[in-house]
Amino acid sequence: MMALAHVTIVGLGLIGSSIARAVQERLPDVTVTGHDASSEVRAAARTLGFCDVVADDPAAAVAKADLVILAVPVGRMADAAVAIAPGLRADAIISDVGSSKRGVADALGQALPGHLVIPAHPVAGTENSGPAAGFATLFEGRWCIVTPPAGAPDEGVAAVTGFWQALGAKVETMDAAHHDMVLAMTSHLPHLIAYTIVGTASEFEEVTESEVIKYSAGGFRDFTRIAASDPVMWRDVFLANRDAVLETLQRFNEDLTVLQQAIRRGDGAKLEDWFTRTRAIRRSIIEQGQDDAAPDFGRKH
Amino acid sequence: MMALAHVTIVGLGLIGSSIARAVQERLPDVTVTGHDASSEVRAAARTLGFCDVVADDPAAAVAKADLVILAVPVGRMADAAVAIAPGLRADAIISDVGSSKRGVADALGQALPGHLVIPAHPVAGTENSGPAAGFATLFEGRWCIVTPPAGAPDEGVAAVTGFWQALGAKVETMDAAHHDMVLAMTSHLPHLIAYTIVGTASEFEEVTESEVIKYSAGGFRDFTRIAASDPVMWRDVFLANRDAVLETLQRFNEDLTVLQQAIRRGDGAKLEDWFTRTRAIRRSIIEQGQDDAAPDFGRKH
Repeated sequence: MMALAHVTIVGLGLIGSSIARAVQERLPDVTVTGHDASSEVRAAARTLGFCDVVADDPAAAVAKADLVILAVPVGRMADAAVAIAPGLRADAIISDVGSSKRGVADALGQALPGHLVIPAHPVAGTENSGPAAGFATLFEGRWCIVTPPAGAPDEGVAAVTGFWQALGAKVETMDAAHHDMVLAMTSHLPHLIAYTIVGTASEFEEVTESEVIKYSAGGFRDFTRIAASDPVMWRDVFLANRDAVLETLQRFNEDLTVLQQAIRRGDGAKLEDWFTRTRAIRRSIIEQGQDDAAPDFGRKH
Repeated sequence: MMALAHVTIVGLGLIGSSIARAVQERLPDVTVTGHDASSEVRAAARTLGFCDVVADDPAAAVAKADLVILAVPVGRMADAAVAIAPGLRADAIISDVGSSKRGVADALGQALPGHLVIPAHPVAGTENSGPAAGFATLFEGRWCIVTPPAGAPDEGVAAVTGFWQALGAKVETMDAAHHDMVLAMTSHLPHLIAYTIVGTASEFEEVTESEVIKYSAGGFRDFTRIAASDPVMWRDVFLANRDAVLETLQRFNEDLTVLQQAIRRGDGAKLEDWFTRTRAIRRSIIEQGQDDAAPDFGRKH
C-alpha cells in the first residue's frame, strides 16, 4: 500500500472520531488532523485528544493530507467538499464513510473536479453519536465496502483498502449502485422499519407509553436501539438512497401482506414454515462472526 | 403469600426450565416436579438436574402440587390441561406462562372446570429454546403480568404474584384483553415485523444471501435475533392473538405509508422530526432499567 503520512478527518462524530482513535492506536506513525464544522465538536475533540491537531479551518485542515476522509451526513458531503477544495494537495486521495454511495460519488466528483475520489462505507456503528461516542475498535472484524469510480487507479484503491484493513476492517469492493441496493436491504430498510414501529407504539392510544416501556423486553426494545440513531444522518440516507429503499420496502410490504393474510385465515402451516426458514439466517450470521452467539445479544440477565 | 411446598412445571423448554432453575436457586424449600410431553426433553431435564423429580406421566406429575405452571406453546395449553386434570388436587392453583391470555384463559377454564386458574405471562425470554437454554436469572428485574379472571380469590392471585416476585420478577395485574393488546404492540408485532424482514432479505434476488449476512451489522442482524425465536411458539401466538395483532399491524402499516410517502416526496423535515421523537423512547427504556445502556446492546467490539 501507498505510505500514508498524514490523514485528515472532516466530521468528528461517532465514525470520524472512531477512525481518529483507531489511527492513533494502530498507525502511530500517521499524523491525524481533524476538523468539524461545529466549534463545540472541535472543542470536544481537543479535550478528548484523539487527533494530533484539530483545525478550525477546513482548507487548512487538509493542506498536508495524503488521505482526506469526509465523515459527515451524506446530505452535507457536497458542502464539506467545497469547503476543503481550496486546501487540497493535487495528489491527495479523498474518501468518505457515507451509507449511500451513488449520490455521494456524484456530489464529490462535481465538487472536486480533477481530484481522485475513492468512496468507502465502513458497515459499523452504534446508536450513539458525537465525538465522545467513538472508540478505536469499532471497525475490527467489520466490513468496509469500497466503491471506486470507473477508471480509478489501482494505487488509489489500494491505499483506501489498505487504510481500512489497517484499522482492522475487512474490505470488499463493488460498484456504487450495487452497494446502495445491498445496504438498502441490510441497513436502510431495517432502520426505516424500526423508526416506524417505535413511532407506532408511542402513538397507539390503547396502550400507554409507560406500558410500552415496561413491557418492551418482549421484543420491542430491540427496535428502539436502532430507532435511537442520529436523526439527521438517517434523514439524509433515506433522501439519498430513495429508489433502492423504496424498492426494498415494496418487497417487504408484499411479504408482510402474505403473513397478515396467513394470520387472518389462521394458516398456521404457512406461519411455521416462514418462521423456520428465518431461523437459519441467524445461524449463518453467528457462524460468520457478524454477531455474538450469546443469547439476547449478550445482555446482562 | 400462601406457603408453596410443591410446584409442578409442565413443559421444560426455555421458560419452564428457567422457572425450575430459579426455584432451585431462590426457593430451596420448594419441591419442583417437571413433566414434558417429549421423552427426549424429559431425558435432557433429568441430565441437567433442574427438577427434583421429572415425571413421565402428566397426571402423576401434578399429584402433590400446590401450584402447577403450564409452560407449553399457547396452542397446546388445552391438551396439557386435559392431560393433568385427573391428577390435580382440588385446591391446586393452575397458572401458565403464555404470551397471549384471553385464549389461554378460555381454554384452561373449559379444560379444568371447578379449578382455580390464574394465568400469568413473564415478559422475558431469549431467542434460544429447549431445556438447555434456560437459566435461573431470566426473570430478574423483568415484568410478569398476572391476568386473574373476574372473581378470582385474592389469596390465589397473591400466591401467583408472590411466586413470581420470589423469582425476581416485578408483577403487574391487568385484564386479559388489555394484556393481549399491550403485548401485541410490544412483542407480537415486533416479532412479526422481524420475521417478515428476515424473510424478505433472504428472498431478495438483487442481493445474495452471502451479502445479506456479511453486511448485516448495518442494522439487519438485530432483527435476525428475534426472527430466530421458536417457530411453533410464535405460530401459536399469532393464531391465538389474531385480532390484537391485526389491529396493531394496521396502525404500523399506516405509519409506514406516511414515511414511505415522505421518502418519495423528499420531505426531509418530516423524516427528521419522526426520527427525533423515537430517540426519546429509547432513553426512557434505559432509564427504567428495561435495557442495557451500553451501546449496541453491549456487544463486544
